[in-house]
Amino acid sequence: MENNRAQRPVTANSSNRHIHLCAEDLEKLFGKGHQLVKVKDLIQPGEHACQETVSISGPKGAIDKVRVLGPLRKFTQVEVSIGDSIKLGLSAPVRSSGDIAGSSPVKITGPAGVVELKEGCIVAKRHVHMTPADAEFYNIKDTELISIRCGGVRGLVFENVVARVSGKMALECHLDIEESNAAGLKNGDKVIIL
Amino acid sequence: MENNRAQRPVTANSSNRHIHLCAEDLEKLFGKGHQLVKVKDLIQPGEHACQETVSISGPKGAIDKVRVLGPLRKFTQVEVSIGDSIKLGLSAPVRSSGDIAGSSPVKITGPAGVVELKEGCIVAKRHVHMTPADAEFYNIKDTELISIRCGGVRGLVFENVVARVSGKMALECHLDIEESNAAGLKNGDKVIIL
Repeated sequence: MENNRAQRPVTANSSNRHIHLCAEDLEKLFGKGHQLVKVKDLIQPGEHACQETVSISGPKGAIDKVRVLGPLRKFTQVEVSIGDSIKLGLSAPVRSSGDIAGSSPVKITGPAGVVELKEGCIVAKRHVHMTPADAEFYNIKDTELISIRCGGVRGLVFENVVARVSGKMALECHLDIEESNAAGLKNGDKVIIL
Repeated sequence: MENNRAQRPVTANSSNRHIHLCAEDLEKLFGKGHQLVKVKDLIQPGEHACQETVSISGPKGAIDKVRVLGPLRKFTQVEVSIGDSIKLGLSAPVRSSGDIAGSSPVKITGPAGVVELKEGCIVAKRHVHMTPADAEFYNIKDTELISIRCGGVRGLVFENVVARVSGKMALECHLDIEESNAAGLKNGDKVIIL
């Protein structure tokens, strides 16, 4: 018999615009030998918000105080909302993290220098992180597109939500701020996989 | 036999923050005898965007260039997104237009004066305007809560969408900008009533 997915609700949290840096860009933006300063652990193990922020800009505008998330990655990646993308004058595509080929160019400014990314600015594709045990409970495979229901006055069903299964992750639904506001969700609210 | 609702798709348009004014507040904000200047007709018959803008503010911030929509109404009403509401430091409730009792206070500043609304700032509840003929086609009643599907990479189903049936209206789905961005919709895209 299949498990009732509603018996294992998922905590939803929204991501504001943020940036992941590679080691080379960290030094260009913050100076040689700079080490990121952690200020808050995130729910995903090993991930954290840093003290550092940068400005990002495009043909039509700029946004300040974009939070750096750690740890360092192989490639620099900027994640914005569609509203941010319009403000910057970009057409950032909806992509899963790491899938940056052909995504939007963006200029990044830090206290020690500037990085002109040729690609790397995306709108994060909504997703649910889960462990292999969660995936087995739900009978869901990694990269599978699933649907999640959010209740309340702005109740809705998000389709095309990517399941991201990994032993290094914890069960959590990641939306951007426009998505969570559209659903009337507050951080920590529970959603149900359909 | 029931009609297939998908055979009559609905044009979706998103509303940015805006304000409807009563005659008294118009004069307070823009001066005695001021007449609104129409710059663009909206799809709903008789409704239009005006040249005039105001600033709105709350305990935590202000937003400039908030568009005035005409014609005048019996009560002043400010419509913002949840993101706007947070920026202003308000907790504007999700309400249908006109249902402003107990909604958020907001300060409105125009070139000739200030209005301190005790209530009237809301987050518009998403809705579909339709004529009685549309309502008959869909077999939907005025104020009924319906669901609409939006396709594409950010496909989703909005639940709790209010049907607003009136002979004075045209078939159109109204979302706010966060909702349309969450669904990846552009103005004029079609959505389907389920």
